[in-house]
Order: sequence, then structure tokens, then C-alpha cells
Amino acid sequence: MANTVYDVTTWSGATVSPYVDIGAVINQIIADIKANQTTQTTRPGAVIYIPPGHYDLLTRVVVDVSFLQIKGSGHGFLSEAIRDESSTSSWMETQPGASHIRVKNTDGNREAFLVSRSGDPNVVGRLNSIEFKGFCLDGVTDSKPYSPGNSKIGISVQSDNDSFHVEGMGFVYLEHAIIIKGADAPNITNNFIAECGNCIELTGASQVAKITNNFLISAWAGYSIYAENAEGPLITGNSILWAANITLSNCNRVSISSNKLLSNFPSMIALLGNCSENLIAANHFRRVSGDGTSTRFDDLFGLVHIEGNNNMVTGNMFSFNVPASSISPAGATPTIILVKSGDSNYLATNNIVSNVSAMVVLDGSTTATRIIYSAKNSQLNAYTTSYTLVPTP
Amino acid sequence: MANTVYDVTTWSGATVSPYVDIGAVINQIIADIKANQTTQTTRPGAVIYIPPGHYDLLTRVVVDVSFLQIKGSGHGFLSEAIRDESSTSSWMETQPGASHIRVKNTDGNREAFLVSRSGDPNVVGRLNSIEFKGFCLDGVTDSKPYSPGNSKIGISVQSDNDSFHVEGMGFVYLEHAIIIKGADAPNITNNFIAECGNCIELTGASQVAKITNNFLISAWAGYSIYAENAEGPLITGNSILWAANITLSNCNRVSISSNKLLSNFPSMIALLGNCSENLIAANHFRRVSGDGTSTRFDDLFGLVHIEGNNNMVTGNMFSFNVPASSISPAGATPTIILVKSGDSNYLATNNIVSNVSAMVVLDGSTTATRIIYSAKNSQLNAYTTSYTLVPTP
Amino acid sequence: MANTVYDVTTWSGATVSPYVDIGAVINQIIADIKANQTTQTTRPGAVIYIPPGHYDLLTRVVVDVSFLQIKGSGHGFLSEAIRDESSTSSWMETQPGASHIRVKNTDGNREAFLVSRSGDPNVVGRLNSIEFKGFCLDGVTDSKPYSPGNSKIGISVQSDNDSFHVEGMGFVYLEHAIIIKGADAPNITNNFIAECGNCIELTGASQVAKITNNFLISAWAGYSIYAENAEGPLITGNSILWAANITLSNCNRVSISSNKLLSNFPSMIALLGNCSENLIAANHFRRVSGDGTSTRFDDLFGLVHIEGNNNMVTGNMFSFNVPASSISPAGATPTIILVKSGDSNYLATNNIVSNVSAMVVLDGSTTATRIIYSAKNSQLNAYTTSYTLVPTP
Repeated sequence: MANTVYDVTTWSGATVSPYVDIGAVINQIIADIKANQTTQTTRPGAVIYIPPGHYDLLTRVVVDVSFLQIKGSGHGFLSEAIRDESSTSSWMETQPGASHIRVKNTDGNREAFLVSRSGDPNVVGRLNSIEFKGFCLDGVTDSKPYSPGNSKIGISVQSDNDSFHVEGMGFVYLEHAIIIKGADAPNITNNFIAECGNCIELTGASQVAKITNNFLISAWAGYSIYAENAEGPLITGNSILWAANITLSNCNRVSISSNKLLSNFPSMIALLGNCSENLIAANHFRRVSGDGTSTRFDDLFGLVHIEGNNNMVTGNMFSFNVPASSISPAGATPTIILVKSGDSNYLATNNIVSNVSAMVVLDGSTTATRIIYSAKNSQLNAYTTSYTLVPTP
Repeated sequence: MANTVYDVTTWSGATVSPYVDIGAVINQIIADIKANQTTQTTRPGAVIYIPPGHYDLLTRVVVDVSFLQIKGSGHGFLSEAIRDESSTSSWMETQPGASHIRVKNTDGNREAFLVSRSGDPNVVGRLNSIEFKGFCLDGVTDSKPYSPGNSKIGISVQSDNDSFHVEGMGFVYLEHAIIIKGADAPNITNNFIAECGNCIELTGASQVAKITNNFLISAWAGYSIYAENAEGPLITGNSILWAANITLSNCNRVSISSNKLLSNFPSMIALLGNCSENLIAANHFRRVSGDGTSTRFDDLFGLVHIEGNNNMVTGNMFSFNVPASSISPAGATPTIILVKSGDSNYLATNNIVSNVSAMVVLDGSTTATRIIYSAKNSQLNAYTTSYTLVPTP
Repeated sequence: MANTVYDVTTWSGATVSPYVDIGAVINQIIADIKANQTTQTTRPGAVIYIPPGHYDLLTRVVVDVSFLQIKGSGHGFLSEAIRDESSTSSWMETQPGASHIRVKNTDGNREAFLVSRSGDPNVVGRLNSIEFKGFCLDGVTDSKPYSPGNSKIGISVQSDNDSFHVEGMGFVYLEHAIIIKGADAPNITNNFIAECGNCIELTGASQVAKITNNFLISAWAGYSIYAENAEGPLITGNSILWAANITLSNCNRVSISSNKLLSNFPSMIALLGNCSENLIAANHFRRVSGDGTSTRFDDLFGLVHIEGNNNMVTGNMFSFNVPASSISPAGATPTIILVKSGDSNYLATNNIVSNVSAMVVLDGSTTATRIIYSAKNSQLNAYTTSYTLVPTP
């Protein structure tokens, strides 16, 4: 086997068992890679394989080499939330499994994996094509809504990076599953992120993130997806559940299409600050209640909340089913889409179905909103006269 | 190598060659896993690798441990339907390949793989994160339309399960490729299922299945996707061919978007019974004829058939091209969308293109259907007066 | 290990180091497979593993066996375009990495991999289920716009093929990344193709290609996706960047949905010749300028250019932002959608946002175009009277 292929369970250079501290072992492997790959044209990176097993991580891994692939044999999700509320004495398994890492830092750090390189990225280069694939990061113990919770972070990327890749991973019981700062073309696909405070956070400015084909299951105090100052992410084909919440702050040209969203709370997609020219198309929004309680947003906030200009919401299905007694503020008429600010937002051919009266609301500051076959006359609540309605018959 | 990594061709515990009966070998491996993993907190499961090769399966595999990953090196599809109708004497390959399992049960069972655990799931726990990945299940011989056919089943999951995962698999010449009962968050992605009677069947009640990025190629007697009592599946990015037929019985909040559907028969999407608040958006429907014959549905059934309330059909392209002489009943005007029952169904901005006159039809029992830019005046056939039409010009 | 599992770095049959000429080694492995697999029912193929490393390819690989999987441990992209314009003396890595093949043919051929079998496919059989997975093909040196450029081709498939599969690959600095002739049900998914002249080309007639979940990043002289005489491709969930250009010549029933497209040039989707019944839905189009120069198309060509009948464009967001001084011809009003020819094309609920006046244009030859809530009165420029406009208010 080439010396670029490592198995955490067999690598002879480790000074500790990977079952005791897989973090220390991976750090030692990375040190070995760096010792073997010594010039800028001879650094292809390596693959580190984690066979199925239960591993503790006591020491944070610091990844500072490009092209590293860390790979397991399965995301190994088991619902710890259900487990912790059940009588499990006769359960066959009570731990997540497959290539299963218990995040138990004793080193004072919050992250299981920190991807970071010292130095100015323009001088030392960005981190390229690092890949996490097919294993489980488990925070072990936590309580709803996980944020704040055990404070643990699965993967944090803190240096400028290109084509960062997370695929087939499992994350459970973490306050933050994935944080990426300064991302260019990251690819987050086919993961199972569940029972976390926050699933995916794109901090700093990012470019053209692709978030596709994931299960994102977070509770009510954090975010399914959070992005700030992002340009052009594509969010498609995801099942976003429990407290689906995509929050975009000052983001532009985002495309959110063909997703399934389910939430027990308002704010399923929020465009905050100055968010323009975003597309929300062909998504299914389901709003229920009862699994969790929160006063974070009231029902006037909107399932979709828009601040900014020229955004388009089209071809979406909204299915709202909340008992009148659970609406907040008490007695309020819930808002499906709130155009909170901005000019020329465009709502076309959306379908609103609700067990109670529910509204599209235009704030008094908004101008030139067009609402085309997206609300009946009785479903529009406009605090401005600057709009055009073609009512749904 | 960790003792959680098995190769069917090298594992010393097998009492039979995997080429003779890979089912028996995998059952022995599973017994070994259970012998090695003996407490509820020490059961991470294992990975069983199937290298490229032709393997016979004589004995059904019973998977009753969580986190098991069974993995090959390719889905190995070869069209057996074309082969069986061709002169193949000089073909280089006449069998499917890669990690290729010939399903030839001699044990009286129909399934190649049965995923099932004895006991009440609340007592013994659900089966979690079992994964089938990258190999081929081949029924060896069959005849169109494969249902009823050789009666073989690729994978049947019969115990309550969470995050079941099928990816990169090939299925060919099976009456049923995948059956999953009682699924929570199953992930069926990037598979090549072809020349089967039925591709994916979700029986019992299921939650938020994700079916994405697959080729699903079935013949005219079964289903591409069948679901009963399902809540919130997401079906997106699939190419569904030959006799594309998604049938949903009493399913709600399903999202079917951005798929390519091709069929030689009516009933490309059928919502049966009480199906509400489903979304059918941005799909391409192509209806042709000539590859197979069937009297299962006539052309009055609809390419899309709706029973239920508040469903939305938007942004879809319908392309119908069937010779008038092939329409049934003879002389009938074919139906593109049939709203068979229900209230407040919503059709918006769909495009119907047809070589013959073709219709959107509203049954006499339906109420408050809205048809917005989805049919010309001449394309609506309403047996009720309770509807609103904004005709396509 | 089964004799169907090869590692290029350890296989004892190679007469040259894979680091010196991986192409020669893979050809020798293929010869070995053929020597071992000698009848039409005993040819399952094999998997060839490429561990992380920098490999040179001097000799073209010819793949003429079905079911071969060639697999690495990462797509290893590094932006060579940025590298070549930067001061890199202190960069840690200046080469792509992971399983990294430098395409340096010294054999007079242009291709790194040629998939081709001698003989009439009807006689010798098609090539089935060949898979390229998880490695990097790097053309080493090139200059924008890469077409014409270094003339190199990553993968060329020149025999009739079924279920060809490219997944998780990286391509960089190639004039042509992937060319497939005569494809039936190819699956191109989750790749990172960047800084190439052309990303994906489907030549000859093809059937139901599936192109999903990719990054496709090409420059201004070639194509992101080119297809001729294609029936029914599905193009969904892709991020198509820099000079996004999907060109379809005489293609029908194509579905292009839920993609993110960004270009510095006109012609983001062009339907040329006789293209009918295609669907363009729920995509985000962003047009900017400044990264590259080209006179290939002027701003009258359209971001979407349509020749043919019964095409549907719905639910798309168009975001145009080009300084007036950069519009060509000088002083022209740029075209967002040009219906160049054909009958009954259908534009519904699209949103056009532009920093300058921008138009939907109908050529004088076009008939019966319907423009529904896709352009304001002031945004339609019709050289025909055969159309219906429902203007966006």
C-alpha cells in the first residue's frame, strides 16, 4: 500500500490507541504526512481510514494540509434524542455506530476537527479539497434545543478554503455540526445531520456554496443553514426538518429550490438585512407545532421572511397546520410570507393552505411588490399601497 | 485491519465459497459480528466488502444488526432485457458485472436481503443506519413486465428502521427491487434500478423518505415508486423511465420536483385515496407508446391523477405523443391531468403539448379547483361548475 | 484480496512505476483482467485503486472492458488559474493533489482515457457500467480560455455505452474534460470540473443522460454542457459557473431545473436548430462581466436563446448586472430571453432584474409565443404580432 494510505487502527506510528484518543492519532498521522511530503509540488495529501468502531476523541484534530481525505464506513446515525427519552434496557444498540467518534475533548477545545492553517492565505495558499466522508461525529450528551447546549463543534474551517467537501457524514448531538469561514465552492452533500443545534454555518464571505441532498434536522434555537455575506449558494434537494430554519444575512443570488422543509416554528427561510435577487422555488413548506417550544419568533415573523429587493418566491407549497390556541401572539393571524422591507419582490404561483386564516403581509416600507396568484384577496394584508395583486381565485 | 472490516472473498470463517453462496457467507459474517459485539454500547456494526466478481446467492441474508454497511465496487448494470432479445454470440459480456450477485435462492425465500429484527422495536430498538452501497442484485432470468415475474425481491426491510441507506446500487430483473416497511428518514440515492417490476415501495407508514438522483426504470405492471400512508417524502432529481409510475396512496405533503419522467402508459403520477397538500413541480413528463402493452390504465386515467385536497401542480412540462390509433378507449380524448376528487386543487403554469387533442379533466365531484395558465379553454373538460379557469392563451 | 482488486502502486505486474506512467500501468492491468476473464459470462471487470499521490500519465489508457471501476481517494482540485496568476513562492501546495494524475501524453494522443471497443456494438456488445470515481485529471499547463488550449481530453468515450458513470472526479486544465458519444443513461454526478475549456460533451445521439450535483466551471470559448441530438437529459442541481453555457443542438425533452448559473457572457442556455419541448425551470441565472473577454456572442443573443417549438421557461430568476459600457453591440439593449424561431414557446412567471434596460425578444419568424408574467410591457420587444403577453405588473 502506498504511504499515503493510513488506517487509524493499524498505523504503527501512533502513541495512543485510536479507541482512546482518535484525535491524537490523526494529529500524529498528519504530522507524518507533513514529514513525508516536504515540497510544494510533492504534497498530494493522504487518506485516513476509520474502520467501523467506537472511538473517543479527546484531542482536537488540526488539519492544515490540503487534499486530506478522512473517511469512514458509514454515518452511523442513531437518534440519541429518542434514546434519551425511552426505556432502552433491552435495546440492542444504544450508541451511534459505524465509524463512530465520540467527541469528548479534554484539551479545552470545542472542536473535534479544526481546519486551519497559520499565515495569510495569499502567502501560504488556501486549503484545498479537504474531504470528510462517511463517518459519525457524536457529541455524546446534549439536551434540547442543543444551542446553547454542550458547546461542541464537529468541524470548523477557519482558514480560506477552496472546494471543501463534506459527504456522507453523520452528525448528532453537537451545538454546531459544520462551520465554514471564507469558503469558495464548498460541497456539502448527502449528509445526515440531526439533533444538532446548528447544521451548516457559512461565516465570513463565501462563494457559490453547494448544499444538496442532505438531511438537516435541527432544533429550535439554531439554524439548519446560516450564511452571512454569501454570494450565489445553491441549496437544493434537501430534507430540512424539525425546526427548518434557513437564515441568510446580507446574502445575494441564493437559489433555494426543490427542498422539503418541515418546522414546528416560524422563520423557515429568513432573508435578513439586505438580501437581493434570491430565488425560492419549488419547495414544500410544512408548518406544524408541538415538538418543542420557543418564543424566538412569533407567528407574525413569517414562514418566509424577506428583507431586500428583487427576490423571487415561486412555485412553492405552504401547508400550515397549527391550532389557533398555539398561535402567538394570542389571537394573531399567522403570516406565511412577510415582505418586511425592500422593493420589487416577486411572489408568483405559490399555494397557501392553512387550518386557520393565514396571510401574506407587506410592511408599510415595502414598494412595488408583485403578488401573482399567490394569495387570495382575503389572504393579503398590505400596510402599503405600493404593490400589485393578482389574487388567487 | 480492524475486526470490523470483512471481505467476503478472504474471510476465514466462511464454510462455503462466496461464489457458491454469498448469502450463507454474509450470514456467517453477521453471526461473527454478533459474537464479537456483545453489549448495547459496543455494537458499531461492520463493513462487508464484496470485490468485483460473479457471486451466487442461494441463501437469504438476514440483517438484524444496525450500522452494517455492505459494499461493492460498482453497480454493474447490463441490460438483460436487451441481451435476451439480441444475438449475443459475439458479445464480450453477457452478464451484469462489477460486484455482481445472482439472486438464486434455493432456500424457499424470495428475498436476497431481508432486514428484520425480532421483537417489538420499542423494546429491542429500531434498526439504524444500515447501508447497501455499490453492488449489483440480479434476478438472472425474468420476462416483461416482471410483475408478476420471477417473484424475487432484492432488499426487503420489514422492521421499523431509521436512516436506512441505499446508494450506488444496481438492481435488475427483480419483481421488487427495494421494499421498506415502517421507514423513518430513509435515503435512497444515486442508484440504477432497471428492468424491474417495481423499483421502490414504501409500505406501512413512513416518514420523510428521501428519493433522489436515481435512475428508476420499471415496466408496466408495477411501480417506479409506491408509497402508502407516507408523510413528507422528497422525490427529486430522478430519471424515471419506460413506464414511469409514481403511485401514492393516502400520502400527504409529498414533494415531487425536478424529475424527468418518461412512460409508454398513463398514470405517471397517481395520488390515490386521500392525498393532500402534495407538490408536483418543475417535472418533465414525456408520454410515448409502443414499448410494451397494457390495459391497466386507459387514457382517461390521466398522466397525473389526483384524488384529494389542496394539491399543487406547477411548472411542469407535459409532452404527449401517442398515435390516435393507440389511444384507449378507442376514440377517446386522452387526459393529461385528471382531478378525480377533492377540493381546492391548484394547477398553475403547466404546459401541455400533444400530438392529439388532450385535456385537463375535472370530475363532477370536485370543487374549487383552480386552473391557472395550465390549459387552454379548449383543453378543459369540466364535469363540475365549481372551478376557476384562467386559460392559457 | 480477490484478483479483481488492483492497486496501481502495488500491482506486481507493472513494468513501469505508476508515478512515471500510470497510463501504461493501467493498460497492463486491463490486459491482465482480460487474460484472467476469458468468457462472456465470466467478465465482472475489476476495480483499480489509485492511492493519493502525484502520477504522470504518458500513455493513453484504452478501456475496452465493461464494469471497470477506476477509483481514487479524492478529486484533489487546486485552482491552477489562480496559482498561475499569483506569487506562490511560499504556498504550501502548488499542485492539485489527492489521487492526482498529470496528463502528459508522450504517445501522440490527446486523451488520458479513451473508452472504446473495436467492432460493431451490436456484434460485440456495448460497454456497460464503466465507472470513474474520485480522482483528479490535470492538464498541468493551459491558458485561458482553454479552448483551443492544450488540446488535452480527460475522458473520451467513443463506443456505444450504457450506464457510464463519472462521480466525484476532479478535472482541471483540460480542453475537454468529458466527451461521451452514443451514451445511453450516463450518470455524471457530484464532480468538480473547473478551469476547463469544455466540461461535458454528449456527441452523437444520446438517451436520458443524467447530469446532477456537479460544479461545472468553464471559460468562455467552450461549453459547460454541450449535447447534440439528445433525447431527454436531466440537468439538475448543478452549480455552473464563470461562463455557464449549456448548448443543445437539435435536442428534445431536456429538463434543466434547479441549477445555479453564473456567467460573464451571453448564451447561458442555447437551444439551437430544432429543439422542442424542453423545460427550463427554477434556475437562477446571474450575468456579470469582467472576468474574461470574448466576442463569441453579443448581448442580443440572449442569456436564454431558443430555436424550436413548444419549449417552456418557467420559474426562473434572471439577474443581469453589466455596465452599459460593456454591452455589445455598443448601445444595444441586452436580451435576456431570445425566442429566435419556432412556434408556441411558453414563458411563464420568470423574473428579470437588470441594472440596465433588458428585454425579452421575439424574432419576426416566431409564432404563438406566450409570455405570462415574465416581462413588463416595456421589457418585450416583439418583431412579430403572433404572441400573447400577460405583462408583469
